[in-house]
Amino acid sequence: MSDHQENPAMIAITLPDGTIRSFPSGSTGLEIALSIGRKLAQDAIALKFDGKAVDLGIPLTADAKIEILTFDSPEGKNVFWHSASHIMAQAIEELFPGSKFGAGPAIEQGFYYDIDSPHRFRETDLRLIEERMLEIGKRDITITREELPREAAIEFFSTVRQDPYKVEILEDTLKQVDTVSLYHQDKFTDLCSGPHLPSTSKLKAVLLTNISSSFWRGDSSREKMQRIYGIAFPSEKILKEYAARIEEAKRRDHRKLGAELELFMLTPEVGSGLPIWLPKGAIIRNELESFLKEEQRKRGYLPVYTPHIGNIELYKRSGHYPYYSDSQFPPLTYHDEDGSQEQYLLKPMNCPHHHLIYSNRIRSYRDLPIRLTEFGTVYRHEQSGELNGLVRARGFTQDDSHIYCRPDQLVDEICNAIDLTQYVFSTLGFSNVQTRLSMHDPANQAKYGGTPEVWEQAEKDVKEAADRMGIDYFIGIGEASFYGPKIDFIVRDALDRKWQLGTVQVDYVMPERFDLTYVGSDGQKHRPVVIHRAPFGSMERFIGVLIEHTAGNFPLWLAPVQAIVLPIAEDVHDYARTVHQAMLAAGIRTEIDIRSEKVGKKIRDAEVGKIPCMIVIGQKEQENGEVSLRRHRIGDAGRFSLNGMIEKLQKEITGRT
Amino acid sequence: MSDHQENPAMIAITLPDGTIRSFPSGSTGLEIALSIGRKLAQDAIALKFDGKAVDLGIPLTADAKIEILTFDSPEGKNVFWHSASHIMAQAIEELFPGSKFGAGPAIEQGFYYDIDSPHRFRETDLRLIEERMLEIGKRDITITREELPREAAIEFFSTVRQDPYKVEILEDTLKQVDTVSLYHQDKFTDLCSGPHLPSTSKLKAVLLTNISSSFWRGDSSREKMQRIYGIAFPSEKILKEYAARIEEAKRRDHRKLGAELELFMLTPEVGSGLPIWLPKGAIIRNELESFLKEEQRKRGYLPVYTPHIGNIELYKRSGHYPYYSDSQFPPLTYHDEDGSQEQYLLKPMNCPHHHLIYSNRIRSYRDLPIRLTEFGTVYRHEQSGELNGLVRARGFTQDDSHIYCRPDQLVDEICNAIDLTQYVFSTLGFSNVQTRLSMHDPANQAKYGGTPEVWEQAEKDVKEAADRMGIDYFIGIGEASFYGPKIDFIVRDALDRKWQLGTVQVDYVMPERFDLTYVGSDGQKHRPVVIHRAPFGSMERFIGVLIEHTAGNFPLWLAPVQAIVLPIAEDVHDYARTVHQAMLAAGIRTEIDIRSEKVGKKIRDAEVGKIPCMIVIGQKEQENGEVSLRRHRIGDAGRFSLNGMIEKLQKEITGRT
Repeated sequence: MSDHQENPAMIAITLPDGTIRSFPSGSTGLEIALSIGRKLAQDAIALKFDGKAVDLGIPLTADAKIEILTFDSPEGKNVFWHSASHIMAQAIEELFPGSKFGAGPAIEQGFYYDIDSPHRFRETDLRLIEERMLEIGKRDITITREELPREAAIEFFSTVRQDPYKVEILEDTLKQVDTVSLYHQDKFTDLCSGPHLPSTSKLKAVLLTNISSSFWRGDSSREKMQRIYGIAFPSEKILKEYAARIEEAKRRDHRKLGAELELFMLTPEVGSGLPIWLPKGAIIRNELESFLKEEQRKRGYLPVYTPHIGNIELYKRSGHYPYYSDSQFPPLTYHDEDGSQEQYLLKPMNCPHHHLIYSNRIRSYRDLPIRLTEFGTVYRHEQSGELNGLVRARGFTQDDSHIYCRPDQLVDEICNAIDLTQYVFSTLGFSNVQTRLSMHDPANQAKYGGTPEVWEQAEKDVKEAADRMGIDYFIGIGEASFYGPKIDFIVRDALDRKWQLGTVQVDYVMPERFDLTYVGSDGQKHRPVVIHRAPFGSMERFIGVLIEHTAGNFPLWLAPVQAIVLPIAEDVHDYARTVHQAMLAAGIRTEIDIRSEKVGKKIRDAEVGKIPCMIVIGQKEQENGEVSLRRHRIGDAGRFSLNGMIEKLQKEITGRT
Repeated sequence: MSDHQENPAMIAITLPDGTIRSFPSGSTGLEIALSIGRKLAQDAIALKFDGKAVDLGIPLTADAKIEILTFDSPEGKNVFWHSASHIMAQAIEELFPGSKFGAGPAIEQGFYYDIDSPHRFRETDLRLIEERMLEIGKRDITITREELPREAAIEFFSTVRQDPYKVEILEDTLKQVDTVSLYHQDKFTDLCSGPHLPSTSKLKAVLLTNISSSFWRGDSSREKMQRIYGIAFPSEKILKEYAARIEEAKRRDHRKLGAELELFMLTPEVGSGLPIWLPKGAIIRNELESFLKEEQRKRGYLPVYTPHIGNIELYKRSGHYPYYSDSQFPPLTYHDEDGSQEQYLLKPMNCPHHHLIYSNRIRSYRDLPIRLTEFGTVYRHEQSGELNGLVRARGFTQDDSHIYCRPDQLVDEICNAIDLTQYVFSTLGFSNVQTRLSMHDPANQAKYGGTPEVWEQAEKDVKEAADRMGIDYFIGIGEASFYGPKIDFIVRDALDRKWQLGTVQVDYVMPERFDLTYVGSDGQKHRPVVIHRAPFGSMERFIGVLIEHTAGNFPLWLAPVQAIVLPIAEDVHDYARTVHQAMLAAGIRTEIDIRSEKVGKKIRDAEVGKIPCMIVIGQKEQENGEVSLRRHRIGDAGRFSLNGMIEKLQKEITGRT
């Protein structure tokens, strides 16, 4: 027995670093924080208590493992922004009486609140509300939690707050719940499970960013509401850092850089969300495709080509139609000259086509695994408001593969697919990759194809492969696709934003639907398992993210223009042309700038054009048959013989460094 | 003055070799042929008289340039087959009284006749009719021409022949004509402009090939008729040669070889006319694409990628919709979530997309020519009955380029495009290429865009380029596209069949429709000219033809499996595996056959699989670290060191020989 139970007035608190300290029973998180340090107490936002965030003010009466949450942690930010949304609501209530409030959660970056108000909010109102929020912060209002029976809460929101929305929630969504919690701050009260900041004083900086519209409970037949988005911080300094990051993100916006660097275009004349790759962007896409093709060839993949349309019956067979028809382009109706009529879909995925290739002949257990691969362009319906350049498009090209294997080969093949994905990411300079094992939600089995037994096996195999590859993963319940569990690769870019890119998916369902078989060593028919995998995911999306990650400063092997020859004066033009031709002949994408500008201007223009290598040619270089190499954003890289420089660059290009 | 006019009873006949001979006025073609030689008179079918085919029996009464037509010439075959259709009609009339006859022309290979008969013809009837035709041939019936007034002909066909179809032609199609011609052979008479054989005796061999149905005058509201197809010859020997060629064509049929060699598949589950490239076929397509990409890179082409659909407004702008809508897939109607509605077309061509890329920025005269290129998959409606594997498909990939140039660059650019096309054909082993300059038909100007002046200039430029390139071309009036003249490359394959493959097209019309401009050296806006070009034409069609041309015996660089390692016995398996791995590492597509079969059997199977290189490994090879190379269809090619053999094959592959 431990000491603490001998002294029931004391509790043992385990801190994140493993140390255990004794506190009087009834101590709060704030008191514990204070005992550790004044700074921590100042920064404290909430308490993580046995894995769950709770209010700092809750008295602890038993031994526990705790963590003081600050704004530095995702959970701390979440609590902070949730409280900021309450403070915004209070500010709006004070400024625009009669406003009622719908949902007001924290989101990935900030918070929003849905408001039903007779006032129509405009940009100028946001500045007013921001001011009032900061003022409420200065008032240092204590935020208090109250728990009371649901019936009493209904009474409170009906009479005191006169808030029909909270009453509806209490009478409908929460009708099975006995006790609910309210959060009070001054005259403002919200129905909320919390946790929240101890006081409004933590809020030191706020930025309201956007007004849009929404419907109560997301139902377009219900009340239309105004949604105000914002973000808030515990200091002016963090706000400034945030604003600078936003500014940087704007500067790196792939749509802006895509136009400036002439990588791609979008035009309503072709259609929304249908990117067209301009010559310079096509070079990047082609280099990436060649890179993956080469890797896949080494790893035994077999390229195929399939049409961009398919008879709608094919998608009925796969189950994609009509169940997923709201994410597809509508079918077209084809009339043959003999009067027959067929419907075709723009293919929303490549899988059914590949399954038909698999079943085009009898397969033996010795033939497996068969790894079919295609850069397959697919078309999907994305809502206009969701479209975002290359990153969210209606037509995009998947680096799609389907691996048909025996169950005993499955874990090996998942490992191979993970390995390839990791290789792709590391080559492209994405060093910060999170991995999610996307599992099904057993509480919602009807959403999925296949039996619970099949799911159990598939998820076991996925975990085994992830473990064998030594991946540091997290589990996402309910994130599986309808045909099986997935491994999703979530990349963080240079601005620390998350992007879901590559994927490896296990599928026991489609082999049934397409009656895929192989003849086993026993001479009997067996079902193969299918792995769907795409390291890039979508060429468009990947390159969109890559543009923002690199800010358009592509590695040498990907740069549309790899080098530019810059003669200092006209008397070295002939030699400059010789250098230019030699580089072209060596397969280096090179331009030459023979304008009668000063070399300083030529260098500045090349820097703006983000050209990795500038080959400066003057009298001295000409005399010695040499070149001076200057690297983008780095500067002088030394003088080389022409061939020496070409070899150096070729090595860098083929090494994809 | 010449001798002949001094002796009016004699005429001067110029023969094809340029010699001039005198004949009595009134001499017939047959008499002239006899005077030249008995063999020629025997083979003579008709007379070419001042450029037109006429009956051999027509008396010549003036000086003339003539040629005796035999079965060896296309015109001779045409007359022969036309007469054979009459002989078939006579045979049918004798065998199946009450049969009436519609149209009965010669076609590219043989003839057909449309028959209205109470008898329903079956396969067995064809043998009966063939017998009767040969018997009519033996009867040696003279075929005679009679000219008479149209009214008299109507009387004849109404009463004597009781043939309503000929009466309808006389009363309708020929109503402006005073005198018509009839051809008699025994009791059978046809309304026909001729010419025909002098006698049925020329017909020595016949093959009736097919029965299908048709409508009188091609109008589905009129009488349904039975169409019998056939082909006939002046000797049994020529029939045998023909039958052997047909047999060989069947053996080489790309649909048959495509399935046997697992190159591609077609399935109604995806859709008719939508080929799917299986791994082995995809290798061939990928190699061809890489080959052309590499050539195009050297020649300054800029690859782009564009979507497979476009807003229908784009095709209205180009004029392709609705004017060409019967050769397109129907539009699909897209509903956005905001209630707006748009129509999209599967792109029937890539041009409009490329024009939008051109006009995405201001172009200077210094930027031109701009050569955009894309392997662009397009979709077109082809009638079910016209579909033919890869050669005629509904979805196919064009090796499409659009070259935007100044008018002063046009001829150079056409020449460059011709040069590339010739290079592609010669690399692929098509040595027999005909070139057609496809011009517009001035009598039908309304069919074309652009003014007569523009057409004159464009056709002048096309001719100038063809002349400069020293091409031996022929002119095809009315073969131009609606936007400009073309140079079409017509290839003859190993069976001497013609295939239209590559094309180079000049376009002055689309630059107007898309308002394409460049800023000239004068600072003013000018119109560029567009060249559309595609050396392969369609990857599908080209490869379909290539399969038949090579009978599936692809050159080494294209072969899906380039080599197979054949160990003689199990004790050399390890060495064979080393050889296999070394070849794979060298990038040679190699398999290994480690079945416990005799090497003779392994070689036979590799020959059947049309694998170009067999690497035979026995004890001796293992001891010396060597390999024995055997070439498909050739046999032993000698013993080599492993590296020596690899280098030899690599050289052959990179040289594309």
